[in-house]
Amino acid sequence: MKIVIVGGVAGGMSAATRLRRLNEDAEIIVLERGPYVSFANCGLPYYIGGVIKDRSKLLVQTAEKLYDRFRLDVRTESEALKIDRQLQKVTINHQGYLYDERYDKLILSTGAKPMVPPMKGSREADNLYTLRDVPDAERIVRMIEKNRPERAAIIGAGFIGLEMAENLYRRGLKVTVIERAGQVLPPLDIEMAAAVEQELISRDIQVLKGKTVTEFENHGATVIMDDGIKLEADLTILSVGVQPESSLADDAGLELGMRHAIIVNDQLQTSDPNIYAIGDAISIRHFVSGAAAVIPLASPANRQGRMVADILSGMERHYAGTLGTSIVRVFDQAAAVTGLNEKQLRSSGITYETVHTSPYDHATYYPGSKSMQLKLLFESQTGQLLGAQAVGAQGVDKTIDVLSTAIKAKMTVHDLTELELAYAPPFNSAKSPVNLLGYASQNVLEHEVDSIQWSEVDKETHEGSLLIDVRTESEYDQGTIPGAINIPLDNLRERIDELPKHREIIVTCQVGLRGYLAARILSQKGYKVKNLDGGYKLYSTVFPATSKEGV
Amino acid sequence: MKIVIVGGVAGGMSAATRLRRLNEDAEIIVLERGPYVSFANCGLPYYIGGVIKDRSKLLVQTAEKLYDRFRLDVRTESEALKIDRQLQKVTINHQGYLYDERYDKLILSTGAKPMVPPMKGSREADNLYTLRDVPDAERIVRMIEKNRPERAAIIGAGFIGLEMAENLYRRGLKVTVIERAGQVLPPLDIEMAAAVEQELISRDIQVLKGKTVTEFENHGATVIMDDGIKLEADLTILSVGVQPESSLADDAGLELGMRHAIIVNDQLQTSDPNIYAIGDAISIRHFVSGAAAVIPLASPANRQGRMVADILSGMERHYAGTLGTSIVRVFDQAAAVTGLNEKQLRSSGITYETVHTSPYDHATYYPGSKSMQLKLLFESQTGQLLGAQAVGAQGVDKTIDVLSTAIKAKMTVHDLTELELAYAPPFNSAKSPVNLLGYASQNVLEHEVDSIQWSEVDKETHEGSLLIDVRTESEYDQGTIPGAINIPLDNLRERIDELPKHREIIVTCQVGLRGYLAARILSQKGYKVKNLDGGYKLYSTVFPATSKEGV
Repeated sequence: MKIVIVGGVAGGMSAATRLRRLNEDAEIIVLERGPYVSFANCGLPYYIGGVIKDRSKLLVQTAEKLYDRFRLDVRTESEALKIDRQLQKVTINHQGYLYDERYDKLILSTGAKPMVPPMKGSREADNLYTLRDVPDAERIVRMIEKNRPERAAIIGAGFIGLEMAENLYRRGLKVTVIERAGQVLPPLDIEMAAAVEQELISRDIQVLKGKTVTEFENHGATVIMDDGIKLEADLTILSVGVQPESSLADDAGLELGMRHAIIVNDQLQTSDPNIYAIGDAISIRHFVSGAAAVIPLASPANRQGRMVADILSGMERHYAGTLGTSIVRVFDQAAAVTGLNEKQLRSSGITYETVHTSPYDHATYYPGSKSMQLKLLFESQTGQLLGAQAVGAQGVDKTIDVLSTAIKAKMTVHDLTELELAYAPPFNSAKSPVNLLGYASQNVLEHEVDSIQWSEVDKETHEGSLLIDVRTESEYDQGTIPGAINIPLDNLRERIDELPKHREIIVTCQVGLRGYLAARILSQKGYKVKNLDGGYKLYSTVFPATSKEGV
Repeated sequence: MKIVIVGGVAGGMSAATRLRRLNEDAEIIVLERGPYVSFANCGLPYYIGGVIKDRSKLLVQTAEKLYDRFRLDVRTESEALKIDRQLQKVTINHQGYLYDERYDKLILSTGAKPMVPPMKGSREADNLYTLRDVPDAERIVRMIEKNRPERAAIIGAGFIGLEMAENLYRRGLKVTVIERAGQVLPPLDIEMAAAVEQELISRDIQVLKGKTVTEFENHGATVIMDDGIKLEADLTILSVGVQPESSLADDAGLELGMRHAIIVNDQLQTSDPNIYAIGDAISIRHFVSGAAAVIPLASPANRQGRMVADILSGMERHYAGTLGTSIVRVFDQAAAVTGLNEKQLRSSGITYETVHTSPYDHATYYPGSKSMQLKLLFESQTGQLLGAQAVGAQGVDKTIDVLSTAIKAKMTVHDLTELELAYAPPFNSAKSPVNLLGYASQNVLEHEVDSIQWSEVDKETHEGSLLIDVRTESEYDQGTIPGAINIPLDNLRERIDELPKHREIIVTCQVGLRGYLAARILSQKGYKVKNLDGGYKLYSTVFPATSKEGV
């Protein structure tokens, strides 16, 4: 069997090495357009920032080493120009030399390329960079070392954009992040992203939301936004997302789907039975919604690479879809997401409930514990998990990994209450953050408490609901939600007669726990009551006390 | 409804507060024999070591605060002496004053007490301590501050024993740990515990295995073991495990099971329908084996506490069993386990396979990654997960939590390969340690490779198998398994004719990965080959190069 793989990074190389392990005698050719194969592209921002000091660390493998160990025929600077599906051959351009290579099976692992929206003057902007591969990173490093830029603009506040913000800050640049959406990190919901934005601002990163860059002036030195605001920048990184690199597939007449991604079946097979495709170039099913989705992430790409090798070797495998689990570190905070977010759920037609909690990563009686913000989304009737988000300094990766495993297992909020996670004081609490999230969600699912979201509370108080802050007097005095009156939880039973039974009552506290206790007391006494999910902490993250703009 | 709860720590207090949240008008009485309720008993070793400096941190709640917030009638220094099941009343001793309290439902959360094996002279040993509650910890702290002991003996190398070893070391004592079993941390298998023992030894903790303390002389100053060895100790901690505190239940004629634990059904109900029991005092089902088990851990106790409150409030809940997930930090290493270990599996009759891997906690190209040792046990035919163990400096808690969630979801090794865990360079690798463990296990399950365990290799080479070390020459020169000859992996294809086809070949490398590659090459070329699971790293952890004793 002769297998040709187009693309020698992540999924492509996973496929190649696995194919060799399963087929000692197969002929396996890997075509890589660039100079390097199997490089660590997720490390590029950290190489630019100097966290990864040695470029060789990024180069996981070389063509020579891959031959020695796996007898792979790896050809760098070899671009697949054209596929002849009838004759089963690929035309290859190696430094201007064109030749054909026949295949029995072809695997396309062509990846994705940075999106470049139309912006006037972008061609003349000589300080404008995108970041996809090692040569891109080297260009940016050389530019920084030669030109000593002082002000950086980053267009796009997604994962790569924020990693670049951190790493250019580390390089001593004054950084501004410009994002078209009304929030940073669009994969998260707005109230969760607000904590990340606070972290950026605390590091003197300027964050401009709801703004689109439309033009560059002075060879890129001036960045102009759609509202006319101008920003001076010595270095600009464009990171507004990626698009599937599917022109080779398209030219060959393979079926493309949303965002021009290559359509594959659950065997990772394209519309041509001899051609398979994996990684950022393909359209897959979202594991939760079942809808077609393009989710360019390294982890699914690698897993698809191994799986396509198994399938070509005759093993029974089916790709079950992608959850979109992802994480980013932003200075001292980590932000992570898995499954569907609320924005996606709103447009999906799935009925869902939302719960926010604010647990500590480990026992508070043991030094060093830190609180994180969690959000869980689950189906309203069944409690089946749909998605989760986490932001915090510690424990975010662990929490999201447990939740992504639970989603993959099609667990419900009930199951979360029964997970048995490892507890010792340095690592967890006896009731882990995930258990607590399950408890809070179970309370909502089983209607022990009605909750109200941060985005609804102002509207409901304006419409006549009575807002009670059940924190202590001193907490209340340090700031509360407009209109809230203070009845500390521990006095609520004594003062219950002060409350009107005919009005809806909203209770709030710091993170939602005392509010829940208050809601239980009141509802059992015949009051109509809702608890503010996430409490004042979440509310004030989205609506900082000094300003209520920006939402 | 009037509910009496015996025991005001962990499960007991979880039950009490949840009962109040669900039943504002119930009468809830909590009886606690000691002076404190709801204290953080898992923090006690760290309080003794001075990591937790403020004793008040351990006291999560007080009777007063529990009244103010939950209207709980919490009675400290109130021991339940006797249950009259006919009249549904408990006789209580409060500082010598005896009285009865009637109940509609009774919850026993009596916990477990330290086991004290018969040892001659133990009554006269005035430097001998056990550790169960805050007064115990205070006694030890006072002893240390008053007597300034220099040498400590810790009898029992379980979780508490090792936490005490670390914390007494932190206090400046010279510590010896004495363990009856042939390994430290008996919940782990011996080869996994070996890495923890190395960590202890590297801190100058003396570890005596396979020794039972039989006698104390000189008021405890001399500890004598069953082989006659004597050890001088100024302070001795006895931590050989706990036993269910079930005498109250026993006297009342409730059914007891293994180790005198209280038998409950999946509603946490004892043989008396008005009496429930939770926590360390009960016998539960092991989640994996379904067999009766006594698993005294804080996390299940707390979850059972909440569940029994739900059940008493009419909710549909069933306790599905306990996995035994647990973790301990030992200096810079963490060791964790979930599900069944190999010792338990051997006696269970379940057919299983074992896989060891040695992945890094995050991308090696990003600074600070550290390797850990993982072990997975799965059912031989189906690949269903049975248990897992992990030892390492970073990522152990996360890895075990994901695996315990996977076991709870009844996942197989195939499912592990498809988990989608959060990847960014500081947090994980694109193929996470759990994915890699799934891959390695899938290879064994699907017979792509035959593996051989660390405990079998010497026997097989003695019986004529040829042992090939496929690491580099310089790795080989630094130490290998007795009898191994060196053929580096990258030369194997060229030198394959050197190998005899009629002899069984065992291949080994550093952690098992290159050995697997070698095994794939050889088996496809018609050789009979096995790969040493875990490689030389695991083998040499159990059999250090200088000595092969101790196993």
